[in-house]
Amino acid sequence: MIYFDNSATGGVKPDGVINAAQNAMRFLSANPGRSGHSLSLKAGMLVYDTRKKAAQLLGAPDPERVIFPLNCTQALNTAILGSVISGGNVVTTANEHNSVLRPLFELQRAGRITVSVVSPEQNGAVSVQAIERAVTPRTYMVAVNHISNVTGAVAPIDEIGKFCRKRKLLFLVDGAQSVGYGELDMTEQNIDMLAVAPHKGLRALQGVGILALGPDVQLRPTLFGGTGTQSESVFQPDELPEALEAGTLPTPAIAALNAAITHNQKTRAESRRKLRELSAYLLEMLPRIAGIHIYTAPETYNGMVSFTIDGIGSMDACNILSSQYDIAVRGGLHCAPLVHRHLGTLQSGIIRASLGSENTFGEADFFLRAVREIAHTERNGTL
Amino acid sequence: MIYFDNSATGGVKPDGVINAAQNAMRFLSANPGRSGHSLSLKAGMLVYDTRKKAAQLLGAPDPERVIFPLNCTQALNTAILGSVISGGNVVTTANEHNSVLRPLFELQRAGRITVSVVSPEQNGAVSVQAIERAVTPRTYMVAVNHISNVTGAVAPIDEIGKFCRKRKLLFLVDGAQSVGYGELDMTEQNIDMLAVAPHKGLRALQGVGILALGPDVQLRPTLFGGTGTQSESVFQPDELPEALEAGTLPTPAIAALNAAITHNQKTRAESRRKLRELSAYLLEMLPRIAGIHIYTAPETYNGMVSFTIDGIGSMDACNILSSQYDIAVRGGLHCAPLVHRHLGTLQSGIIRASLGSENTFGEADFFLRAVREIAHTERNGTL
Repeated sequence: MIYFDNSATGGVKPDGVINAAQNAMRFLSANPGRSGHSLSLKAGMLVYDTRKKAAQLLGAPDPERVIFPLNCTQALNTAILGSVISGGNVVTTANEHNSVLRPLFELQRAGRITVSVVSPEQNGAVSVQAIERAVTPRTYMVAVNHISNVTGAVAPIDEIGKFCRKRKLLFLVDGAQSVGYGELDMTEQNIDMLAVAPHKGLRALQGVGILALGPDVQLRPTLFGGTGTQSESVFQPDELPEALEAGTLPTPAIAALNAAITHNQKTRAESRRKLRELSAYLLEMLPRIAGIHIYTAPETYNGMVSFTIDGIGSMDACNILSSQYDIAVRGGLHCAPLVHRHLGTLQSGIIRASLGSENTFGEADFFLRAVREIAHTERNGTL
Repeated sequence: MIYFDNSATGGVKPDGVINAAQNAMRFLSANPGRSGHSLSLKAGMLVYDTRKKAAQLLGAPDPERVIFPLNCTQALNTAILGSVISGGNVVTTANEHNSVLRPLFELQRAGRITVSVVSPEQNGAVSVQAIERAVTPRTYMVAVNHISNVTGAVAPIDEIGKFCRKRKLLFLVDGAQSVGYGELDMTEQNIDMLAVAPHKGLRALQGVGILALGPDVQLRPTLFGGTGTQSESVFQPDELPEALEAGTLPTPAIAALNAAITHNQKTRAESRRKLRELSAYLLEMLPRIAGIHIYTAPETYNGMVSFTIDGIGSMDACNILSSQYDIAVRGGLHCAPLVHRHLGTLQSGIIRASLGSENTFGEADFFLRAVREIAHTERNGTL
């Protein structure tokens, strides 16, 4: 199979990542932070070491402020639901994923906040000026994804961070598509809350997310339970990270994340170069096929190759690519409805080939041939 | 190491469980329920098959009503926060874990509900009569753990279920310590919501919980995000299981759970027999040591061996057992404060040896010798 669905989940996991999970399953099967015996402590130390590595990767100020929820969605929910100010306003963008839009619109539906959605510019990204125009005296947070999971557009995080700092607004960044590929530094970029999907760009395992918090962020817990601390109290403790982590942590996935960060730091520069070359090649060749429309943001070469084929819906095209060519891409709306409304692709959806650094030019050529055949068939009305 | 901490996490995972996770990491690295390509569909089928197996294991009516949260704590939070009726009352027990107590007391602190706590009887378990006495016209839910994680006491689920059905009360069962060891059947026992910690009795991996729902239960989502369904909407869909599952599922942990259920069904009867024998042996021998007080519920042989040693706190005793004998047990309060208040052990805590079916009589004898030496040292004041 040719796996071009790395934005859904990183397709091939590095051996070191799989080995780390295996070792944890076999030799570290204890509950970290619960019992005082040596194996539990060892598991706890692995978890803490992973917090430290994640903090370093993200430019986060404090390992204790690196939280491990189930996934990036839960990270974003923890940030959004835990910071809500009743009667306040949140400014966000049409490029957001439903993991940001749905909690925000739920809060709006409940009458607790208002949500302002900023549309992207010609280059596919939102501008800091548009965000500035949307902010009102009631605004307490700006929530922006770093890299769009539909167009690959890269938000101007530096500028938005500076603006938020100046205006004392909480700045939440959805790094689902960027951490591992892109460079983020919470401290330098004035990011207050950064949510990560480690199974994507970091090629870690599904089953753990990251929420990294800046030094001044106070979140109310939204999940309550055993923390292994202050067990005499029937209330959630205030100390981080326990305040925002209830119940048993996923040790194997955290062990894998630890290895994935190490692997990523060694290989990131080279992976970015490969991704850039492959993306540039596909984005040069695809438009030469009649009937193809590109939706990747202009001059964006981060692996996101988004397009439609005249005459065929994105889901149907993906089914043909899978069943007849064994190529894995994703069609439909990619859980990001507002950007499709903006692009006019709510009906057709978009075919998204999301490349990984393991993909090759040979695979790209085979993919181009497949798309050419499908587009040709559609134009000529034969199968 | 002698691992007697199976109630914190099942210590040794069956090879089949580890292999299933490995296979998922290597050969099923796609996002289930997201893309339409063959690998994503295959991952989706594995998830659905696991829902089916879990439904069968638990006597749940419908695989679509088997939800996979991060852990049992999140399962309990989803049940408790998603079913809250403002102005209502919940009846629960002093045997509960903080994963039930903390969300309930948080709701009480917010003024949304009142919480009534029923104390256990002489046999360590709550009685249906005591629950009946606590129920008021405002009561909408009864929340009971099946097996206490401190005393091993087994709640009379059958009777409580019948009572709840008769009075049209939601019946929530915390099966963290029981599923895998004990027998539960949601349909026969009138359980509306059953929360499971698969990494404990089922010896699956950390990183996935189960919340199984009866046919009539309607929960409001507490987590919002991408579901791969109704992506055009900025609101969480109503259909189960997606309504209660936002974001990427942990495929490797779910694959492991699938294998763990199969393994458990083959080995459960034999495991129970072994656990019963080992527990009975320890609970017969331990009280012969001077200075030992047993807190395991009377005639309870499900692997939970709870005790104190005169003159030494439970945490200190556990540290000695770990550092000098390489025995892993847990001290302290085990995230269950109210049962310790009831037992008068809030200060000392309790030493809990929680056995697994892989443990042996040889390990039990070594453990007895270690406890004898520690108790003897304490009595004679020398080290």
